[in-house]
Formats: sequence, C-alpha cells, structure tokens
Amino acid sequence: MDIQSTFESLDKKFTGFGGLEQGGITRLLYSQEWNDAVRELEKTFKEEGLEASFDDIGNLTGRLVGSKYPEETILTGSHIDTVVEGGHLDGQFGILAALAAVKYLKAKHGQPLRSLEVLSLAEEEGSRFPYTFWGSKNFFNLAKKSDVDTIADAEGIKFEDAMRKSGFDYRKTTDVRNDIKAFVEIHIEQGKVLETENKTIGVVNGIVGQKRFTINLKGEANHAGTTPMSLRRDTVVAYSEIVSDLTKRAREIGEPLVLTFGHITLVPNTVNVVPGEITFSVDCRHIDQQILNDFAAEIEDKIRLVAEANSMTYDIHLWMDEAPTLMDKKIVQIIEQAAKSNVGNQYKVMPSGAGHDSQIFAQYVPTAMLFVPSIGGISHNISEETKIEDLVKGIEVLSDVLYELAYKE
Amino acid sequence: MDIQSTFESLDKKFTGFGGLEQGGITRLLYSQEWNDAVRELEKTFKEEGLEASFDDIGNLTGRLVGSKYPEETILTGSHIDTVVEGGHLDGQFGILAALAAVKYLKAKHGQPLRSLEVLSLAEEEGSRFPYTFWGSKNFFNLAKKSDVDTIADAEGIKFEDAMRKSGFDYRKTTDVRNDIKAFVEIHIEQGKVLETENKTIGVVNGIVGQKRFTINLKGEANHAGTTPMSLRRDTVVAYSEIVSDLTKRAREIGEPLVLTFGHITLVPNTVNVVPGEITFSVDCRHIDQQILNDFAAEIEDKIRLVAEANSMTYDIHLWMDEAPTLMDKKIVQIIEQAAKSNVGNQYKVMPSGAGHDSQIFAQYVPTAMLFVPSIGGISHNISEETKIEDLVKGIEVLSDVLYELAYKE
Repeated sequence: MDIQSTFESLDKKFTGFGGLEQGGITRLLYSQEWNDAVRELEKTFKEEGLEASFDDIGNLTGRLVGSKYPEETILTGSHIDTVVEGGHLDGQFGILAALAAVKYLKAKHGQPLRSLEVLSLAEEEGSRFPYTFWGSKNFFNLAKKSDVDTIADAEGIKFEDAMRKSGFDYRKTTDVRNDIKAFVEIHIEQGKVLETENKTIGVVNGIVGQKRFTINLKGEANHAGTTPMSLRRDTVVAYSEIVSDLTKRAREIGEPLVLTFGHITLVPNTVNVVPGEITFSVDCRHIDQQILNDFAAEIEDKIRLVAEANSMTYDIHLWMDEAPTLMDKKIVQIIEQAAKSNVGNQYKVMPSGAGHDSQIFAQYVPTAMLFVPSIGGISHNISEETKIEDLVKGIEVLSDVLYELAYKE
Repeated sequence: MDIQSTFESLDKKFTGFGGLEQGGITRLLYSQEWNDAVRELEKTFKEEGLEASFDDIGNLTGRLVGSKYPEETILTGSHIDTVVEGGHLDGQFGILAALAAVKYLKAKHGQPLRSLEVLSLAEEEGSRFPYTFWGSKNFFNLAKKSDVDTIADAEGIKFEDAMRKSGFDYRKTTDVRNDIKAFVEIHIEQGKVLETENKTIGVVNGIVGQKRFTINLKGEANHAGTTPMSLRRDTVVAYSEIVSDLTKRAREIGEPLVLTFGHITLVPNTVNVVPGEITFSVDCRHIDQQILNDFAAEIEDKIRLVAEANSMTYDIHLWMDEAPTLMDKKIVQIIEQAAKSNVGNQYKVMPSGAGHDSQIFAQYVPTAMLFVPSIGGISHNISEETKIEDLVKGIEVLSDVLYELAYKE
C-alpha cells in the first residue's frame, strides 16, 4: 500500500465537500457540505474495514479492534470542519493522515494488540457559530446545552435547528470513555518555524497558554493645529510607548513568548484631531504559566504607568486566560524517536502557538501532537499548503507512533 | 452705545439662522438658513447706515464711506458659514464683532477719514461642498468655475444649482479691488493656549504652514500564536517606533511645532493576527517654513529608516503642503498696542495653528488677526463658547485697531 497515493486520493475526495472553485474549502458545522463529508467518511471507514460510529453530536470514529487488549484504545484524528475559505489541510489532514496510517498498518501488520481508532471531530474552529471545540468538548462531556441553545449563525439559523437538520442531537449520556490510552493528533504547523529552520516534523511538547486583553485609554481630543504639544493628552503617543516598551521586553524575555497588538480603534480617527481615545488588543502567549503570568503583570504595570504619566484614564480587560497545556512526555518521546528514525535531525521539538483539539484531550488522556510544515506559514486561507513529501513524512511518522502504541506490548 | 448689549442682540438674532435646539448652528453655504442670514445681515447693515452690497457669489459688505480718503478702505470681518453642528462664534463672531465695532466708532467718532467696511464672507469651512475658502478666494478672483462645477453636496445637489437657487452666480468680472489698505479679522482661538495662560487677547503674528502626509507600511500578516517575534514584520511595532521617535523630536524642536498622528487604518485589524499593513496620517505645522521643511525631511527619513530596518515597503504621500502666512507687521503692532491699553499684559503674541480667511487676504493686502479665548479650547462643536467679557474685550480692542487705521491720518 502506497501512503502517498492513498492520502492523495482521500484528500481529493474530501476536499470535494465544500471545495471552492478557487481552491480551499468552506465546510461549516452542520452545513450540507459538512454533512456530506461525514457521511462519506463513515462509508469510507466501513470500506476500509473499520467499525464506524457516530456519537450523538456528530463526532465519528472508525475502529480497528485490538486482538489482545481490545478495551485499550489508541485514538488519532482531528476536526472535519473548516473556517470560511479555509485550506484543505487544517483539520482534514489530521483525519485523513490517521486513516491512511491505520490502513497502512493494517495492510502491513494486520490486527493491532490494542484497538486503533480514527477520530473525526465535528467542530473546532467556531466559524459558523460562536462556540469552539464543540467536538472535543462533547467527547468529554464538557459542552453544555446551555452553551449553545441561544446561539445562531450569521444567517440567524439557531444552533439546535442546524444540528437537528443534520440528523444529530445533544449528547444523551454523561458517561465518558475510559478506554483511551493515548490520543495523537497530526496537524499542519500554521506557522513558518519549520520552514524557516528547514525541518520536516515538529514534535509538539505543549500548547501555549494565552492571555488576551482589551485596553482602553482616554486622553483628550484636541484640534491638531491649535493645541501645543505640551497641552495634549494624545492617546496614540501613549499607545506607541506601550507597544515599543512591551515589544522590547517580550524580545528580551525571548522565545517562545509572543506579543501581538493586532486591533486598534481610534476615536475620532481624523487626520487633524489629536486622538482622544484608543482601544487596542493585546495577545500574549507562552508555554510556561509562570512566565506568562509575570509578563501579563508587566503589561498591566506598563499601561498603568503610561496612563498615569499622561493623565489618562485606562481600562484593562482580560477576557481570555487559557492555561498552557503540556503534552504527555512518554508519547512525545515516542514521536521524537519516530521522527528521528524517519527524518534524522530534520525535526524540532516545539510548542504549538495555536490552539488545537489536543488541548481538550490532554486534560483527560495522554495526548501528543506532531506538525508538518506550512508553506510560508499560511493557514486559514485557501492558499494553505504543505509539500506532498512533507505530508507523507508526517503520515509515516504517525504510523510509526501508532505502531509503537498499538502493536507493541 | 453699549458694546456688550449691541453684540448680544446681534448674536441672538443671527444664531437664529440655522440655530439648533441643543445650541450651536448648522449653516451651510447656499442653504436656506445661510440665505436667510445673509439677507438679514444686508438689512441690518442698511439699518446701521452702511452701504450694503453683495458680490456675485454672495460675499456681503457694509460700507461706511470715509470723509477724506474714501478710496482707501479698512476691511474687517470673517465668514458667515458654519460646520455641521458648529458653534455660534466660529466665523459669525468676526462679522458681528466688526459690525458692533463700526457701530460703536460711528456713534462715538462719526465718519472716519478712510472708508470702513464690514465683510461677511460666503464660505470658509468646506462643510457642505468639498471646497474651502470659496468666499475669500472669490474676493481675489482665485476661485475658478472649474474648481466647483463638478462638485455636489452629500445629498447630490450640485454646487452651481445650490448657488443659483440662492440667487447668486459665478464671479462675472476679473478685476480685483485695489482700495483695501488693511484687513483685520477677529476670531475665537479654537485652542486653549489663551485660557491656559490666562490671557484675554491673542495677537496673531502668522498662520502656521501645514504639511499632511498619508503613510503606508506593508510588512506581513501572520498568525499571532505561531509566528515567533523574530520572524515578524509587524507594522504596528514599526509605527510605534515612528510615532515615539518623531514625537520626541517635535518636543525637542519645541513650540510652535505640532505633530499629530490622528488617523490609523490597520489591516487586518484582528486580535490574533500580526498586523501586516498600516496606513496612517501625519499632520505637522509650524510658522517658520524652513523649520517645517526640515522637520518634514526628518519625518520622511525616519519612515524610510524604520521601514528598511524592518524589511517593509513604504509609501509616503504628501497631499497637503501649505506655506506659513505672516501677518502684516505694522498692523500686528497696532493690535498689540491696542491689546496692551485694554488688557495690560493679559495678551499673547502667537501664531494661529488653524487656517483662516486671513491667510488668503494676506497674500494681497496688509492683514492681521486677533483671537479671543475658547473655553476648554472647544470649537467645531455646539458647546463652543467664550466668556462674554472676553468677547467684549475683543470687540473693544478691534474698535481701537479700526480707529487707528480708519480715523487717524
């Protein structure tokens, strides 16, 4: 069995569900395209000799039962939904790579000792409805009816109506599976670290914690011509000092700390008026909770100091505070070993700067991830791409990892 | 004759034309409110014994003929139009103060040696149509039919149609008056320098030159989580360096240099994406052309250096470049003397940071301006206000200046 042609044929088939003329995919939760994709995946699982089954909300598994320890399951997969005008790899690659790997292992080694299961999670992106990780959160009975029963999509279609129309329903039971011994997710990097460092495999040691703030500074709007510099309370000048100083500090603290000021609203935002008010975002991430907490405190201190020095009022609103998630050390070692034997030193142990389903799984079961490079770091875009030889290497490494976990005593 | 009650009664009457329930005035060029105001002003001029006459486009003069040098005219006034939801003083005060001063002088001293003329300019603000200084530019035959014959207001009404409906027309002759020996404009400061320094009169020595730029920087939009700081080309970080460094330089160079970054557009302007592109405005003003030119060169150098250091492309577009306008030294001296005798040391010689009709007049005739304080520096707003005692002081100083210019040999 040839991994490359198996993957390419699966990728071609599933990219058809929500595939766009200009390339890429729009496949939103419980849409027709999504429904067509999961039904076809169920059929494909069955054709490959896997026991296919949906849970209540639309997560799909394809199971190859183990010979010796059938009640111990090694799970692998990712999410089937995409963002609007997303690429063909974000999520989908993790499912199809898992399927190709299991097919390869079955063809080469027959039945595993432990059960091997391919997982298609219903939703991760939050692109149709304002709710993320619907798939993985349901897997562990974390999602509540009340989380979604009042939300609707951009067209006003209610979450529950869309779900029922797709043939799915709220989770009916509260029991959570206790048979899962490992979850392994392969994903595109969605950054350009691997490409820049000329690596083929990223061995993910954790998913960064994130804090996101909205900051408001209020100074005074004044006429740009008649107000001397000494009489101004110019919020853009204060903002610039905050951005420059905190960026310098972030660089001093060093990788993997990242700091982003991605959003600005200026009032009045007029050429000839001193900007009296600014609202801006701060996004910072690190794999170490203590370093992240310390830096967040520095952010708050800096804003307070600059605002006070400029006689401005300020508001600091921390609206996202996600803890870092560490991957399972033992599986990380297995992945690193498999990477080494497949690509030599062309791998990098690294944190994930983006969120993934694995951060939900890691709270309950031993979990780890591996990355393949993203060309130009581009993702959430129809031009998202990875070299086919890198995708294949990723599947080969995943196969070796699954072999270690499911075929060895 | 009491200056305060004369002014207050004029102000009450004319604030009625376009006056808003919540206070302030909206009186746009060639609107019904504007037309009512200029027709009433014509009537008022006649009642005060002035020869009233409109030019073709709607500038209105009220003339008190001189006894000895009737062909030498001392002109004083301002503009009758307002911005949308403007105050009752910006422009209107300059006309009504001039009328009150002339009425006072006539009552106290009779006929002047030189002719005294109160001027109501049709338009200065550019608030209805995208064209400023329509009044003063026509006064000197600077406005061309082709400047306005394709423009329209927000409701699609063509400039020419609005003008004709008001009973006015394009300028029919090319000759420019050569009888004007002086133009004096009194105006509210529209800033808070006088208030801050506890001064009653601003003696304007010039109107600042202005340069306005639109700057574009293009770096790279990246995922805020997966892109290490070292791989970013973050335009907000570059922007902040530019703002901080240039603001520091502007403060070093010192007053009256002002520098404003009033407008920002960020792309994509999203919390979790490194901002790949920024477009921002730079507005800088100074009374000295050489200092302004030198600082503009510093601005361009800084942008070039920061862009190059960050591997960004840049575009620098200078779209406004107005030269400073110096006021006539002799009239400035007369104003300063009049201020001194009325308010002692409670006056300040200062540049105007905003544009005024006087900058057009100064190109052709000896011109000067005086300011009264603006409460809180607020203008172009219905809460624009000046203490009545300051308004009266302004009219008294103006009267003394006009006396010097029109009644003295």
